[in-house]
Amino acid sequence: MSREIIYTVRVEFGDCDPARIVWFPNFFRWIDAASRHFFVECGVPPWHETEQTLGVIGTPLVDTHAKFVKTASYGDTLQFHTSIAEWRGKSFVQRYRVTRGDEAIMECDEVRIFAGRKPDGGIRALEIPPSIRAACE
Amino acid sequence: MSREIIYTVRVEFGDCDPARIVWFPNFFRWIDAASRHFFVECGVPPWHETEQTLGVIGTPLVDTHAKFVKTASYGDTLQFHTSIAEWRGKSFVQRYRVTRGDEAIMECDEVRIFAGRKPDGGIRALEIPPSIRAACE
Amino acid sequence: MSREIIYTVRVEFGDCDPARIVWFPNFFRWIDAASRHFFVECGVPPWHETEQTLGVIGTPLVDTHAKFVKTASYGDTLQFHTSIAEWRGKSFVQRYRVTRGDEAIMECDEVRIFAGRKPDGGIRALEIPPSIRAACE
Amino acid sequence: MSREIIYTVRVEFGDCDPARIVWFPNFFRWIDAASRHFFVECGVPPWHETEQTLGVIGTPLVDTHAKFVKTASYGDTLQFHTSIAEWRGKSFVQRYRVTRGDEAIMECDEVRIFAGRKPDGGIRALEIPPSIRAACE
Repeated sequence: MSREIIYTVRVEFGDCDPARIVWFPNFFRWIDAASRHFFVECGVPPWHETEQTLGVIGTPLVDTHAKFVKTASYGDTLQFHTSIAEWRGKSFVQRYRVTRGDEAIMECDEVRIFAGRKPDGGIRALEIPPSIRAACE
Repeated sequence: MSREIIYTVRVEFGDCDPARIVWFPNFFRWIDAASRHFFVECGVPPWHETEQTLGVIGTPLVDTHAKFVKTASYGDTLQFHTSIAEWRGKSFVQRYRVTRGDEAIMECDEVRIFAGRKPDGGIRALEIPPSIRAACE
Repeated sequence: MSREIIYTVRVEFGDCDPARIVWFPNFFRWIDAASRHFFVECGVPPWHETEQTLGVIGTPLVDTHAKFVKTASYGDTLQFHTSIAEWRGKSFVQRYRVTRGDEAIMECDEVRIFAGRKPDGGIRALEIPPSIRAACE
Repeated sequence: MSREIIYTVRVEFGDCDPARIVWFPNFFRWIDAASRHFFVECGVPPWHETEQTLGVIGTPLVDTHAKFVKTASYGDTLQFHTSIAEWRGKSFVQRYRVTRGDEAIMECDEVRIFAGRKPDGGIRALEIPPSIRAACE
């Protein structure tokens, strides 16, 4: 469906909670970084450029669904395997499989849009720009 | 199904990203606080006590599904309306509706378990303790 | 020297690290919120207004010095007693005494400036605006 | 005085605030990671081992003093040059110089202790263990 790009994270002491495991909101912090890293690695220009050329100001999150399989703790190195699982008319599904070596740690599917500005200052979902889709495949 | 408890959050400058809106992982930070606040307000004893009495050491997250409806920014006050939407055999669904006054901002359903220790040090899902369920209803 | 404004924080589970105490970077998160809260409570207009009227776009941090006296953990309520300890020519010292009831937890002195835009887009320190100083005293 | 170990950080979008620069508490998040990284790279065993062998359970922070020289933003790569600037009787000064290529971004001196357990469960500062000092020099 798309390329798969890996974003690597070292889990630090301060990422963990009193149960000595990663405090789960930190997974979403890393997923957001992995999302942007995916587009950078695919060669998609930064959003301040695409705003001029395509009207795209970013990829806001509409919906996210995550399953937690195993816990992780500090000292672990995690791989965020990131891809686009589905292109829809005005949205797309970005998928993350998080592993520690061979073990599955968590997985997440996000629905995001390519956002443009409305005349009133709000944002709206744009059609998937073909040049961005081509860069990611 | 259960009581509904409100957890209130002031959005701060540092909770927002360069798009001037709440950076979404912060919603999960607040949801985790709202989850614990729910049990505290229902009169459930702290987990270090329930560990002695019921074997329950906490309520780890198994699955989460969130929809983002409107953005929020600093200066906003958000209400996290928290309840138990469903009791299952060995898990339960904790539900959050996040509002700013009358406006819906986001909603989230989480599957959590009541965890106990296994002899090998790992954790396992326990049957829902009737006394905790009664306190929440 | 100035008014003293109290900003109150509930410490949450996720604010604590595997040593079961507040992970110290979170104190700076709360201090930054207490800093902005101080000006809001003193009646200083938001920075997007002062940018138009006084050229002030915010109060960036130049220097911070903190002492950690006692640890805190989840369930604690902390008070951030915030004041301006000193007005200098083009900077000021914002002071925080953090308490849990009668106990001192930490203290912090920050040097901040009132920043304005330079023609090249950078920022520069402005003279303390008399109207802001008057509001804080 | 000691070895110098470099900890490298990629600044992410979510590390930045509405002013589009790193929100300063994140520098302390990275400094805490750089502190632990320093001891790991010097070959000091993890604290759960030193607790058994030396009675050392960690290096809590007593005092921190930071100067902010230039701002950083997402896309930047920062180097945290970490060393021990001074060994005192029962404390030490850990020093961080943060650079982006040749530019100085911030600097920080921390006073930390090697902590041991008191019989009543509290902690106390231990004499600097010679084996740890030797590993760091």
